[in-house]
Amino acid sequence: MARPKPISGFPELLPAQRAVELHVLDVLRRTFELHGFANVETRALEPMSQLARKGEIDKEIYVVRRLHAVEGEASSDELGLHFDLTVPFARYVLENAGHLAFPFRRYQIQKVWRGERPQEGRYREFTQADIDIVGQDRLATHHDVEIPLVMLEALEKLHVDLGLPPARMRVNNRQLSQGFYEGLGIGSPGAVLQRVDKVEKIGAAAVRELLSTECSLSAEQSEKVVALAQISSEDASFIDRVRALGVSSPTLDEGLSLLADVVSAAQKYVPGRLVADLSIARGLDYYTGTVYETALQGYESMGSISSGGRYDSLATDGKVTFPGVGLSLGLTRLLVPLLGKGRLVASRSVPTCVLVAVTDEETRAQAVEVAAALRSRGIPTEVAPTADKFGKQIRYADRRGIPYVWFGGTTGEVKDIRTGDQAPASSALWRPADADLTIGVTGAWT
Amino acid sequence: MARPKPISGFPELLPAQRAVELHVLDVLRRTFELHGFANVETRALEPMSQLARKGEIDKEIYVVRRLHAVEGEASSDELGLHFDLTVPFARYVLENAGHLAFPFRRYQIQKVWRGERPQEGRYREFTQADIDIVGQDRLATHHDVEIPLVMLEALEKLHVDLGLPPARMRVNNRQLSQGFYEGLGIGSPGAVLQRVDKVEKIGAAAVRELLSTECSLSAEQSEKVVALAQISSEDASFIDRVRALGVSSPTLDEGLSLLADVVSAAQKYVPGRLVADLSIARGLDYYTGTVYETALQGYESMGSISSGGRYDSLATDGKVTFPGVGLSLGLTRLLVPLLGKGRLVASRSVPTCVLVAVTDEETRAQAVEVAAALRSRGIPTEVAPTADKFGKQIRYADRRGIPYVWFGGTTGEVKDIRTGDQAPASSALWRPADADLTIGVTGAWT
Repeated sequence: MARPKPISGFPELLPAQRAVELHVLDVLRRTFELHGFANVETRALEPMSQLARKGEIDKEIYVVRRLHAVEGEASSDELGLHFDLTVPFARYVLENAGHLAFPFRRYQIQKVWRGERPQEGRYREFTQADIDIVGQDRLATHHDVEIPLVMLEALEKLHVDLGLPPARMRVNNRQLSQGFYEGLGIGSPGAVLQRVDKVEKIGAAAVRELLSTECSLSAEQSEKVVALAQISSEDASFIDRVRALGVSSPTLDEGLSLLADVVSAAQKYVPGRLVADLSIARGLDYYTGTVYETALQGYESMGSISSGGRYDSLATDGKVTFPGVGLSLGLTRLLVPLLGKGRLVASRSVPTCVLVAVTDEETRAQAVEVAAALRSRGIPTEVAPTADKFGKQIRYADRRGIPYVWFGGTTGEVKDIRTGDQAPASSALWRPADADLTIGVTGAWT
Repeated sequence: MARPKPISGFPELLPAQRAVELHVLDVLRRTFELHGFANVETRALEPMSQLARKGEIDKEIYVVRRLHAVEGEASSDELGLHFDLTVPFARYVLENAGHLAFPFRRYQIQKVWRGERPQEGRYREFTQADIDIVGQDRLATHHDVEIPLVMLEALEKLHVDLGLPPARMRVNNRQLSQGFYEGLGIGSPGAVLQRVDKVEKIGAAAVRELLSTECSLSAEQSEKVVALAQISSEDASFIDRVRALGVSSPTLDEGLSLLADVVSAAQKYVPGRLVADLSIARGLDYYTGTVYETALQGYESMGSISSGGRYDSLATDGKVTFPGVGLSLGLTRLLVPLLGKGRLVASRSVPTCVLVAVTDEETRAQAVEVAAALRSRGIPTEVAPTADKFGKQIRYADRRGIPYVWFGGTTGEVKDIRTGDQAPASSALWRPADADLTIGVTGAWT
């Protein structure tokens, strides 16, 4: 077999890079569980009918068929790989509603697949980490406040522990925008929102132009709509600036109040990481309330690494409706560019903390015994694969970043190969420095 | 959307069942890392040409295509879902050989897909957990001794911690069988091995019959071949029984000696869990040395939950060859039947240890503060979603198995809802019982 080549859009990691990813996954899991989110996994395949949104099948889906499928089987039971974790989760909730307790808090970390043209920051296979809270028939708005705090807490741990750049989440509220448009007497808030979404790309003047030509807004309406989209603040001061535009409606009031709650809680628990930004629209039109978008400060060109929002009807079986609010973290999208640039580095490529040297094959059993004793006290240990000269065995450890090499039996000597220090040690008592016990991960930021 | 139905062969777990699976995954990961195995993940999709074995494409593969693939694209770049973790790992080793340090020890835990007819214990999507040690050009035989000890150590932890039935691994060695056949003057050891593989199913007499009619063996040859397959022992006494058959060859000696090493190490490190069983053949013919098969004692009808062996050429690029030895654990195959029968039970369906009650919506911020204080000390906590009567909030906790409910502010009271005990507590100091901190998993065996 000739040396195989990578497939574009399907990134794979070397062991030391995977160690970084595992570390990040551990931080996410730990944070989500501290907040009482239960883990769920769904199958990778869904019926094509489930993957279709509003009857339309997205272009980017991968269709899956048994190689020797029975004729005719494919059409009725056709399956596709899921392209996000929201659609499968909605199906899971409907399917298992009778066995779940609502509000149901779940996190889900899995690969998803999209047949898009691969390019910088876009992958065909990638991992997402989602948190959602789903209610039965109703879901209190304080969960809109809670969800961003959980994700920002996880990102803050990655910032503090690994030096990942700090996150900046921008939050808006559809009720706020739509209430404002209503107050202005605008009849088609959806169409207006679509144009406003372009403010960042094409600028305020161009959007004003679009609003008047394509949405038939008056000059005053266009001006106020764009003025609203230019308001942002890290505290509740955005309210005064909205009020100053002289528009009012009950829906606007609701939106303002809820967004103020989000911002105030963030000021207390994740200061400097969340901002009310009334330009945020989010393309997907199943969002009905709060919407979130997150960039890494200084790395805004990577795009949003964590987005989401409130949807009043994640799923419904006709009788019961399941409203929800959630955020999705694009783990691969976040990590792969940083790993590629060497920004996140593992202290070693193997979990091994101690390599037990082997003097000759006759005494391998003694080395195995030392290793077993160290492992029984939680120290990751392997035995040298060959009874080479000690220098070569030390190089074996060095190449993998293993910090310690053990010589002799259960009462032997242990060498820190970084410093060269060597001292007598008993395999029943010796402990490595805490920082050496597991693979460490550090950031290398310029 | 009508209530969706499960898809046969694609098992999904409820949150409490998934908690059990996560616990088992943690035990596996912990054990593998203690032994210095590095984690690797490979993409789910491989080119169909890679998935083909010896040029033949297995019937059970799922082919994957972009829904709107460009005409002609499919044929050249056709992809399929991997059906095991060995084929992708072999490809990964070849692709990245220049960046890996050999012998390379890796574990890999991922879903795999097979388009087989679903039936009891057979799934179309399932999780495998593999460990392998791969060398460049050569790999010492002591790794054949090491690999089963690692997997049995993991299974033993599950036995001790969760009450999973004890494992029983049966080990044989191809060199032993083939050397024995050579010593008997048999020319086609492969064909003989195939028949011997059926001893358990069809019995010794029927196999003797097959050997004489289909492999043209003499009565004496058939008798000795079957006699060999009937030898098993938990210690090295199998050697004397093989010798008593009066056959000898250098390859047989090598096989006997290596199998004795495996058995002796197992007697010391996992007593009672491994047996030399000379009937084990393993269907797949890429195995070239030691072969392993594992059942749960008392649950032999589940079939082998962990199998593997030594392969002298996992992968080769024509110049360099990568021999390896490994074991694969069928996690879904092991867990789903046991979860279905209620044999493994989680102590609660959510990670939450404490529910902070909310007196009224005006004091929710105070409850959030209590929760943050508890979480900052590692205690998984959530805040009650609605300011219902306390009885209803306690039922919210009870339904999910959350053991503690907190009343009042940072200086408040905490109730163990299982005993009804309630006592004053400070959110800066109070700690739950250690056993209550995370979800516990216990076995319910009859």
